[in-house]
Formats: sequence, structure tokens, C-alpha cells
Amino acid sequence: MIVVIQCKDQVGLVAGITGVLAKEQLNIVSLREHVDKIENRFFIRVHLEEDADSQALEARLKQVLPADAVIKVNPLPEKKVVVLVTKEYHCLGDILIRHYFKTLGAQVQCVIGNHDTLENICQRFDIPFYLVSHDQKDKADFEAQVSSLIDKHAPDYIILAKFMRILSPEFVARYTGRIINIHHSFLPAFVGASPYRQAFERGVKLIGATAHFVTNELDEGPIIAQQIIPVTHSHTAGDMMKAGKEIETAVLAKALHLVFEDRVLVYRNKTVVFE
Amino acid sequence: MIVVIQCKDQVGLVAGITGVLAKEQLNIVSLREHVDKIENRFFIRVHLEEDADSQALEARLKQVLPADAVIKVNPLPEKKVVVLVTKEYHCLGDILIRHYFKTLGAQVQCVIGNHDTLENICQRFDIPFYLVSHDQKDKADFEAQVSSLIDKHAPDYIILAKFMRILSPEFVARYTGRIINIHHSFLPAFVGASPYRQAFERGVKLIGATAHFVTNELDEGPIIAQQIIPVTHSHTAGDMMKAGKEIETAVLAKALHLVFEDRVLVYRNKTVVFE
Amino acid sequence: MIVVIQCKDQVGLVAGITGVLAKEQLNIVSLREHVDKIENRFFIRVHLEEDADSQALEARLKQVLPADAVIKVNPLPEKKVVVLVTKEYHCLGDILIRHYFKTLGAQVQCVIGNHDTLENICQRFDIPFYLVSHDQKDKADFEAQVSSLIDKHAPDYIILAKFMRILSPEFVARYTGRIINIHHSFLPAFVGASPYRQAFERGVKLIGATAHFVTNELDEGPIIAQQIIPVTHSHTAGDMMKAGKEIETAVLAKALHLVFEDRVLVYRNKTVVFE
Amino acid sequence: MIVVIQCKDQVGLVAGITGVLAKEQLNIVSLREHVDKIENRFFIRVHLEEDADSQALEARLKQVLPADAVIKVNPLPEKKVVVLVTKEYHCLGDILIRHYFKTLGAQVQCVIGNHDTLENICQRFDIPFYLVSHDQKDKADFEAQVSSLIDKHAPDYIILAKFMRILSPEFVARYTGRIINIHHSFLPAFVGASPYRQAFERGVKLIGATAHFVTNELDEGPIIAQQIIPVTHSHTAGDMMKAGKEIETAVLAKALHLVFEDRVLVYRNKTVVFE
Repeated sequence: MIVVIQCKDQVGLVAGITGVLAKEQLNIVSLREHVDKIENRFFIRVHLEEDADSQALEARLKQVLPADAVIKVNPLPEKKVVVLVTKEYHCLGDILIRHYFKTLGAQVQCVIGNHDTLENICQRFDIPFYLVSHDQKDKADFEAQVSSLIDKHAPDYIILAKFMRILSPEFVARYTGRIINIHHSFLPAFVGASPYRQAFERGVKLIGATAHFVTNELDEGPIIAQQIIPVTHSHTAGDMMKAGKEIETAVLAKALHLVFEDRVLVYRNKTVVFE
Repeated sequence: MIVVIQCKDQVGLVAGITGVLAKEQLNIVSLREHVDKIENRFFIRVHLEEDADSQALEARLKQVLPADAVIKVNPLPEKKVVVLVTKEYHCLGDILIRHYFKTLGAQVQCVIGNHDTLENICQRFDIPFYLVSHDQKDKADFEAQVSSLIDKHAPDYIILAKFMRILSPEFVARYTGRIINIHHSFLPAFVGASPYRQAFERGVKLIGATAHFVTNELDEGPIIAQQIIPVTHSHTAGDMMKAGKEIETAVLAKALHLVFEDRVLVYRNKTVVFE
Repeated sequence: MIVVIQCKDQVGLVAGITGVLAKEQLNIVSLREHVDKIENRFFIRVHLEEDADSQALEARLKQVLPADAVIKVNPLPEKKVVVLVTKEYHCLGDILIRHYFKTLGAQVQCVIGNHDTLENICQRFDIPFYLVSHDQKDKADFEAQVSSLIDKHAPDYIILAKFMRILSPEFVARYTGRIINIHHSFLPAFVGASPYRQAFERGVKLIGATAHFVTNELDEGPIIAQQIIPVTHSHTAGDMMKAGKEIETAVLAKALHLVFEDRVLVYRNKTVVFE
Repeated sequence: MIVVIQCKDQVGLVAGITGVLAKEQLNIVSLREHVDKIENRFFIRVHLEEDADSQALEARLKQVLPADAVIKVNPLPEKKVVVLVTKEYHCLGDILIRHYFKTLGAQVQCVIGNHDTLENICQRFDIPFYLVSHDQKDKADFEAQVSSLIDKHAPDYIILAKFMRILSPEFVARYTGRIINIHHSFLPAFVGASPYRQAFERGVKLIGATAHFVTNELDEGPIIAQQIIPVTHSHTAGDMMKAGKEIETAVLAKALHLVFEDRVLVYRNKTVVFE
């Protein structure tokens, strides 16, 4: 069983929490704790050997914690997710393979696409695919239809697996802290259209990818995972794009693994990742 | 202040330890805990915001811990080290530079060499250098002389910074858990002479380095840090050796940083590294 | 068009080869050359902007090269491959997804398994799957049946995507330089059963994977690609195995990409990889 | 001997160049060629086994190359460099150690600092150190004094080893393509003061470093090498700065190695790096 808690910091929190666990005869396999001294914020993840009554345990933990504490006692044996896609297959393909072989750590409820390009691959894995075209529809209508589909499946998380539509603040607010996005990153950053073309013209030696929670500023939410792949002068802009897809796939896979194992805590615009 | 403890595992250890800390009004900045389920062994490192009376704290912690507990309450503000070298400069050079600019995290008491190649660089940094030649001396005499020099400086750790003499079990036993070595590693491993020549002939694509505590089996002690550097067909055996030195320097630097910050706990032939 | 050549080294080879190309008005996009001074062996890969008559070009190149030259003028627009598997899905899944979306760079002719575990995933992608059980069959019979299936599909390469049977020298000899294998690697290497258990007990900090051509000594053929993934004390033996699968998938994908683009030349037990 | 050439691309360049080398009985150890199809620009680096008369060879090569060709026939056995510093020691320390042990691949002529912090370490290595304070001096005067010192030593390259003054376009123009800088990089990029503080507040998981030639836009010149180091939530802004220094040291060392071996060709704002 996993217990994750965050609250304002004060002396004695770990003692209080682990005292409760000891009284319940729950053995700690691993414990990670972090205090953000600047925010005066306390974060903890405890992996317990045994399972216990979640609600009872949460109630007991509340008694030793400040009023603002957010407590999660591994609420679900497995997360439920909805995946949003456009046309690019690389992230979805990896998710579907892991899901099929039961190593994703989550149940894919359905895939929603604003194009039908990836419908066939979903069918091959018996995953429901819903096409919500944005043609001849304003953003509010489009998002209402997507939301309605999402809500029917009540997912824990919504994965933007190369979903190429910018979501409205209203949509994002509806699923605060539950939308995960992946996008390419560069050193230096390139603003504007055709970032790979710009990266090529600048001769960058690295292509990166960042997985993050989505907030109102699309690519600016709390970072979950980042990694890079080296490139050289012999990569064309197209080769750089291919390299970017490889690293996007790997980084999203890692981020999902961390999130599904309750290893990622968010506070303000930042994550604490107990890897 | 840093507190590191290891002992046999049982329910309630974290509660007991953090209860003591809370009573002393010591605030936890970060806490890492690990249980080795196979060995039934408990490991913890606590970083406290404040300093406290080490001996008093240790005594109080003993009361809540099993009898076999090994407790270290950050015994020294800074570790003391003695460095053993032969002829290769890369690891020693890095240590001397960091030491000179006070970022090594340890005091270099002296350098002992079985050749005089590195005497001059030590003098340039005002670090005492002792030459203990092994010529016309049996191993016991050689090691006795080295030991006597070491013991005069009472170091916390002895760093083998490319010291190319195999140490006797007696010597190693004298400094159990306190000798740190760095050596190159390969995938696959190459046994026998000229490993770089063998690596070249096999066309390996990676050269690795391993920093570890020394036990009786020279290159087989508990691993502290490992890393690799990519190589290609265009590397000669000599180029591979150069690449190996780069990665040896980096891995030893990292291992020393981890050890000097009390982040490495050893049990049997294995480390727990709270990075 | 890609031209790859290897032969004994002598002065004037690049001039001779590029002279032929220039006379044919073929423009060089990129050229990589390497001389193994120890073997006195010359290797070259030329990427030409235009296509040309392969046989005519090969004939003209022969005239400027030593008699022992091995010349390949990009013989096929796309390689054909047969994949051999046992029960583990990770490498096959990645291959099938890339194949389905036409980014593998090769045509998967069929998959042959010695268990039926992976039959269903092949069916979902409309890839023929043949079960060749080794039960109640001696090695010669088993391999004869596998060979017969392979030969029907006349593949350029045979991929051992976690195929867990040791192949006989006769089988390997039949497909010299055309069988590609992937396996985990460790620093240090662990001989014998349960290498992940041994790696766990030794507390390794890295898990590696090696993709290589198969020769008579199963895991000892020319290395195509190697990479590692970091692990920590908190990885159980099972977690290390999972990490090993991630890196095996990535390294095999990379090796196949290199081979399918004719970037890998083999001589004796070593590769030249023009990345 | 190393030959590097760049010019506009046309059919037959490699044939022409290697024809000249073959006539001179010069054996090619390794050859790297690249054509930038967008710029229609040809780049080549040839490593020859033997030495030859540089001027005669250059003259003969000119005859087979377009008029715009830039030819370098390994002009010096060893590059000469001047190092500019401010207060941070990490890059200079690494350079001095490599230089002292004759593995830098260049002669350090002198170090120029705008503070005296690093004077003592230079003296310990018998390297002339010149203090050029910018106090009570306008930029033109300051740079005139620096230029005058540089020109006295006639270096091939000027290394900005954490030199924290922005250089004027006039100064940069004086040493076009010969000034190498190192600076930290982030994903995403942070504009303005205290980038490490911003990186900390944003919870980045990587810190990068970029070595590049300096052009008028200080951090925007052709990139030579880039690499990253992972960081976590447990790194304070100060820890991130330390990690940044580690990776800056490594990336600058790599970039210098590449430049000193004539592996880096520059065209417009981009490099071709024949690693």
C-alpha cells in the first residue's frame, strides 16, 4: 500500500505519521520525505508492506497532521486513463503495447482523437476510439464533446499523447493536476513555428523531451520527467524530428510509470518525484 | 546535521527515530529510508536542519533501536582522507583541484605513492607526498610502511586513486569499509592482461568505471557508483584508455561526494546510496 | 543510394572509388571511411544523392578495388526480416508497432516462436506466426523446422527478439552475419543462472544491453550497439529485470535501425558502425 | 597529419582531394565528409598516416577545389591558447591539470582575469596570470588592454572559461571564429537574472551546458558540444549551480578536445563536428 501526504512543514510530522503506521502494525518498505524549505512544505511517500483499510487509516493520519494536509492512501489498485491523440503514433503505440501486456500500470478506458488516423491501431487492441473532429465546430463545442466522453469514463488521468490542440483554461481547470502532456524541448529553446527546422539551422547537439502536468500555460506546468537524445550535424531537420519522437516516447513512458506508482507530488508549479 | 542508522528491520523504527528527533525539536529537511526485504535490514539517513549534541542524541536514539544498530551522528564536520597513487594523474588531479578550492568535502592529509611521478603536483598544492617504493621490499614490509604513514594521519577514508598494487587481506581488514577504489569496467568483462586491447579487439561500444569499497576480493567490494562513456570503432586501444580515464575521474568524484556526505551505507557486499 | 565496401587497405582507395562516382555524376551526400590499422582493413560507406544502376556501378567499382573487396550497392530498397521469439514481448512489441507504422525500415515476413505466448499479438498486426515447439524434438529437428520456415521467406536478417534457445553452430553458420541478438549485460558480468538476482545481490548501479551479430559463441559476436540504464538499491531483482527490458528494447531498436540503413560493417569479431 | 576543407559543393570533390593525396602516397587513416544540402556546402576532414609539406600540399589541393575553398593543413603541431577567467575555478582548474600533464592538446600561453581570484592557482602551475581590472575603466579601455595581452601571445584560440564580462562586437570581430565560450543551459530556457533560482522554482529535471564559438550575440554562436546532468527536487538552487559547474567543466573539456584536434568546422551559425 502507498501513502502520500503533503502539508505545511512543522516539527514532528514524520514521527506522527510513522507512529500511526507502527500502531497499525504496518511495516515500512521504503519511505521518502522532502521538505521544500522555501515553500515550507512537507512531502512524504511511504510504501507499506501490507494493505489496510484506506479510510480508517486516512482518518487516523488526519489526527496527527495539520488541517491543510492532502492525504492519498493508494486510492485505487490501478489508475484509469483516457488518452487524447491527433495523428502521431509513437506515444500511443508504446502505451497500447504496455497496456496489452499489462505492464502500463493503468487501465486505458478509451482513446479520443481529433483525427481518425489512429483509430485502426486502437481497434486492433480492442480499445474504444472516439473521433471528435474540430471541423466546423468552435472550441467550446469541441471541448464539451471531449469532456463528455472523458467524464463518462471517469479517469484518474488524461494523457495527451501528442494531442495537437491547445486546450482552453476552462477545460484544463476541469481536470486540474490530472492532465499529462509530452512535448519536445531544445537547448536553447526555439519560439515560433518549425522548431525542428530552427534547431537544425542552429546546429543543436541535443534534442530533449519534457513530460509535465498541464496548467493554463500549455507547456509550462509542473515537470514530471525530462531526458535528451544526442544529435549531430548529419541529422536533417527530419532526422531530428524522428530523434525527438524516440525521446518523447521514452520520457512519457517514464513519467506515466512515476505517476501511476504515486511517486509524483505537485505543489504550485513544481513536482517532487520520489523515484 | 546528518544521522545515518542501520539495523535489523522491525515495525516502528522510523516512528521511534523521528519521535526522538521531534522531542529534541530537530526539524527534518530530508529523510531517506530503505528496507532490504531479503536481508531484513533497515537503513535510514536523516538530514536535520539544526545541529545538536551528537553523543546525547546517539544515546537517546539507542534506546529506541535494536541492539545491533549502527548509528552515526555526522561524527565530523569534514572527513579526513589519505590518497594512494601510482603514476596516473587523472583522479589525483581532480581531487587536488577540488580540495584546493574547498569543494571536495574532505581534508586531504597526505598522498602516498609507490612511484614518485606525482610528487611534483602534490608539492604544487602544498600536500605532503610520501614515496613508499616497493622495490627490494616484500609486500608485508611495503604495507607496514604504508600503514604506518596512514595511521599517523588517522584518516576516515583511504582513496585508491589509481593505486596499482594489490593489497593484502591483512591490510584491507585493518581498514574495513574505509578504502575506496576506482577501476575501469567493460561490457562484457575482460579477464587477464591488457583489458583495453581486448575491448578494442572486441569492438565494445561502451567503457565503464566503477567506484567501490575494497574488500578482500580487490575489484569485488560494495559498489558505490558506476557510469559509462560511449566509444566507437574509431577509438584505438589508446583512445579507449583515455576515455576510460575520463569516466574514472568522473565516477570517483561522484563516489567521494556521496561518501563524504554520508549518503552511502554498506551491508554485506552491497551499498544503499541515498543520493 | 548507399554504397558500402570493405577490403584490404592500400593507398588511393578513396580516390579510386570517388573517381568512379564522379564520372557517373553521382553526388556524395555523406561519406564515412575508416581504416583498421591493426587489421590493415579499409571500410567505407557512401550516401549518394541519386540512384543508379547497381550492377553496372558495382562492376565499375570492382575495377578500382583489390580482389578481396566486398561491395554492397544498397541491394534492396527495404530489408526483409524474420523474427524469432519465446515469451517476452517487449522487443517484439516495439518491432511490430514500428513495422505497422512503416518506420522500422524493414518488412517483417513472419514471426517464429517456440512458445505460443506471442501468437495473439502477431495476429492483431496480421503478421504470420509459426509455432515451432521444441517439446519432444531434438535440437536438429527443431532447427531444421525453423530453418525451413526461415528459408521460405528468404530474409536478409533474422532477429532474435528474446529467443531463449541456444542455436547450434550449424544453424548459425547457415546464416552467417545475418542473425542479430539482444541480451542484457552487467558491470561486472555475472556468469551462471539468475544474473539479475546476482546483480541485485551485488548492488550494481547500471544494467546494460548489447545487440550483436550471432556467431558460434552465442553472446560473443560482433557488437552493434550497447547502452545502459541506471538502477539503485531500491530496485528489487524484479525491478532490475524490468529496467533491463526497457534498455533491451531501446538498444535492439537502435541496432536494427543501424543495420537496416547499411551503417554496420563486420570484419572478424568486430563492427565498424558509421552512425 | 590532418586536412580540413570546406567549400561550395559540387560533384567530384572527394575524388579530386583523395586523388591528390594518393599521388603524394599519403595513406588515409580516417575520412569524414558531410554535405549540407540546404547550404550546398561541402565539409571534409582527412586524417593522414604520414606528415607532408603543408604548403605544397595546400597548393596542390587548391588546384582541384573551387575558388572559395578554405583549406587547413594541420597548421600547427599544437594549438596555442589564452584563457580568460573571472572568479569561478572549475573550468580553469580542469584546463590547468590537463595542461600540466600534457593532455590538453594545446599550450596555455597565459590566463587573463578581471579579478585576481585565480591568480594563485595559475602561479602554482607557472602559468602567467594578468589581472585586467574593469574598475574605473570603460569597456573600450578594458578590451584594448585585454586585446593587447592576447595579441602579444598570438593564440589560435581564446577560451572564455567562465569569463563573466560581455564582449563588444568589435572585440569579437577581431577574433572571429577563435573565441570559445561555455555556459549553462536549461530546458526550458530562463531569461533574466538568477537562472538557477528560476530553474529551481520550475523544478527542472535536467541542467545542461553548451560550449560554442562566440559571435556578436553572446550565447548564440555555433554550438560545439552540449550535454546535460540530471537533477531532482532535492537539489536546492545552490546544488543546481554545483551540478551546472560539473557539466560545464565536462562539456568545455570535450569541446576543446574536438577543436584542438581540428574536428570542428564552422559555417554561418552552425558547426560540423567530425567526432
